[in-house]
Amino acid sequence: MSLTAAEALARSAPPAVARQDAVDPLAPFRQRFFLPGSRIYLDGNSLGALPRETPERLQRVAREEWGEDLIASWNVHRWIHRPLEVGDKIGRLLGAAPGQTAVADSISVNLFKALAGALELRPGRKVILSEPASFPTDLYIAQGLLRLLNQSGQGRTGDEDYRLKTISREEIPAFLETRGEDVAVLHLSHVDFRSGEILDLAGLTAAAHRAGALALWDLAHSAGVLPLALDQDGADFAVGCGYKYLNGGPGSPAFLYVAERHHQTFLQPLQGWLGHASPFDFDTEYRPAPGIARVLCGTPPILSLAALEVGIDLALEADLHLVREKSLALGQLFEDLALQLGARHGLESASPPAPHRGSQVSLRHPHAFPIVQALIHHGVTPDFREPDILRFGFAPLYLSYHEVWAAAQVLGELLESGAWDREEFRVRGVVT
Amino acid sequence: MSLTAAEALARSAPPAVARQDAVDPLAPFRQRFFLPGSRIYLDGNSLGALPRETPERLQRVAREEWGEDLIASWNVHRWIHRPLEVGDKIGRLLGAAPGQTAVADSISVNLFKALAGALELRPGRKVILSEPASFPTDLYIAQGLLRLLNQSGQGRTGDEDYRLKTISREEIPAFLETRGEDVAVLHLSHVDFRSGEILDLAGLTAAAHRAGALALWDLAHSAGVLPLALDQDGADFAVGCGYKYLNGGPGSPAFLYVAERHHQTFLQPLQGWLGHASPFDFDTEYRPAPGIARVLCGTPPILSLAALEVGIDLALEADLHLVREKSLALGQLFEDLALQLGARHGLESASPPAPHRGSQVSLRHPHAFPIVQALIHHGVTPDFREPDILRFGFAPLYLSYHEVWAAAQVLGELLESGAWDREEFRVRGVVT
Repeated sequence: MSLTAAEALARSAPPAVARQDAVDPLAPFRQRFFLPGSRIYLDGNSLGALPRETPERLQRVAREEWGEDLIASWNVHRWIHRPLEVGDKIGRLLGAAPGQTAVADSISVNLFKALAGALELRPGRKVILSEPASFPTDLYIAQGLLRLLNQSGQGRTGDEDYRLKTISREEIPAFLETRGEDVAVLHLSHVDFRSGEILDLAGLTAAAHRAGALALWDLAHSAGVLPLALDQDGADFAVGCGYKYLNGGPGSPAFLYVAERHHQTFLQPLQGWLGHASPFDFDTEYRPAPGIARVLCGTPPILSLAALEVGIDLALEADLHLVREKSLALGQLFEDLALQLGARHGLESASPPAPHRGSQVSLRHPHAFPIVQALIHHGVTPDFREPDILRFGFAPLYLSYHEVWAAAQVLGELLESGAWDREEFRVRGVVT
Repeated sequence: MSLTAAEALARSAPPAVARQDAVDPLAPFRQRFFLPGSRIYLDGNSLGALPRETPERLQRVAREEWGEDLIASWNVHRWIHRPLEVGDKIGRLLGAAPGQTAVADSISVNLFKALAGALELRPGRKVILSEPASFPTDLYIAQGLLRLLNQSGQGRTGDEDYRLKTISREEIPAFLETRGEDVAVLHLSHVDFRSGEILDLAGLTAAAHRAGALALWDLAHSAGVLPLALDQDGADFAVGCGYKYLNGGPGSPAFLYVAERHHQTFLQPLQGWLGHASPFDFDTEYRPAPGIARVLCGTPPILSLAALEVGIDLALEADLHLVREKSLALGQLFEDLALQLGARHGLESASPPAPHRGSQVSLRHPHAFPIVQALIHHGVTPDFREPDILRFGFAPLYLSYHEVWAAAQVLGELLESGAWDREEFRVRGVVT
């Protein structure tokens, strides 16, 4: 057994690290979360931690709302309004004025709505432009939509198929400028899930607009941890999930932002009854609700929404600029120490330097997989991403500088001792 | 104030009614639910009641799984397997062998998957056949899919558009026989949400198959309360929600059944990463998972799934044939009394006779809306459906014959006294 997280946490960190914790204005947030004591959790960018209030809130919504008031809760507890009310709270984290953000479905389902809606807003244009490094579900959803659209054209002639064009982020501006006339929508992840690189949301959105295209942003790794200005930056659509930095819980509902200027004309094909202008008239013809409500589809998941709201309220209490500052400082501390201790063992940086990265630091090592497994075994949780990435996420609301320092010690001693090099750490689980 | 539910419940029911309760084999289930004491809840077909175990289960999954084990829970608590494991449990209620039912998304989203997949399985056929009395979201989703498909054909010529054909249920067999060659999928609600009429699932499925079409059934008002035999009856697809007779909670995740014979060829456009053959390889190309897993889209909603499982486990404990027997007996008792007390005040039956109806009795009255509001005010909860329907649902796991008798007394005295005829009962809320 190499150094464990518990042992490392029991050590004194250098004075400079202790000082960072002592003056950390976000330190009080830590006690608002339930965290296992002996583990250093650097995977809040995959699944955020449990806010202390969440179990009680779930219990209360179940007992006092569902249990007591049953169907009447749709009115008396405003359940029917929750998707837009909680959506507006998320909007405040995105730099989005009220009335443009809804909570609904999953990020994948919302991507489908936004992509389909974008193609319908740009008739005649056939290309969804993205990059191979997008989060895979973003690409899969685009591929599924395009297969559906092209299938319907089977047996017809005279038109080109819809297609997904993926090129590297560096090539995108030039492509839009020279060959953008067929691009309906530029569809990108704001933060690269592997490297953490932040893409230029404002600049790429403007480039899309100059080409007559729309811009759709996946904010899964941004919402709640990066200051955002969707309205100001001119984004057309954005999606994100609730279970990373918003701490809404596993499989928490997602959100969808549609800029107000599109509300008159935007339509989306997943037009379930909750997006109807008058759902309880039980009309046989769909009529879209005014405003952002038309992105809603099925009956809202009230229990999950309640859990999500706890996480969002916590995020709204914190100053997002302080969150960003601490996020970068935690990442820098970790990266400096990890490279100092690990470079001679083959560890390399795989993230751009601050401030060009989100709230994560990725490292590269030929044996990344067993090293990550060994870290987990020794009480530090990062995650592994194919093919050789160790990904460390920093959730500023519940991590201390001391923990980050201790995690780097564990990693350093693991590399020094070679204790990661065991058969048991090479076994692949379902989720890694 | 006319007779209230609390007053009616305090009265002795006739010996025959008391005897029905005394010998009811399902009576012990009532104590497994949390129910407000003074209200008679006849709307379990809209939102099922809260199982007593649910708040504790939610708390436990939050505290002991999410809180303690964080990201590792996807493996150690089998979160990643929950959609298919809980799906298989639902399958037992549907007469579906394992491996054909998944829990995912909402009923509306699952309808989209099934309809799109069905059209792809029947290339060249352009018609979704349904009826105007389908639950509206079923029609809206079909309309949304068709708008998307037809849009992609804009500017092309030579082919007919995809279309939704709605005709009355009585006309469907003849239509399929004489003009079925262009029908890709027959898409029907198994139980009419207004009248409660049960459609002939086996017969209509066979008629669809004779025409070369597929059959998709919406089981929202069937699952958990009607014995079903999807495999035996040859259904191709079925969807249903978790928040009615499965008591999974407001906006509970839905299910999707795809018959095994289609698993090799069925594809659906909402192909998110959880439906990928190997999601954690993070490939850039979608490859469908083998079997029913390919209907999955985004990250599964673990908290909602946990709540749903409690309700499903309860349903599985009960003998579904006893459930059906009690359901019909409760409905008959109510209908007989209501018509006996209310016929001279204009109350009429709006449901077919047993056993041709699901677990509900619908009545018709020109002033249905204020009467329903007055009933709610007096402690009895049915619901109103446009234009003139009072809908009473009977959830056999938590209703007694005494309650149903008492509810009919409240209705009878309300009509007798005319106490429903007040301005306050005419005010329309958001959800009614």
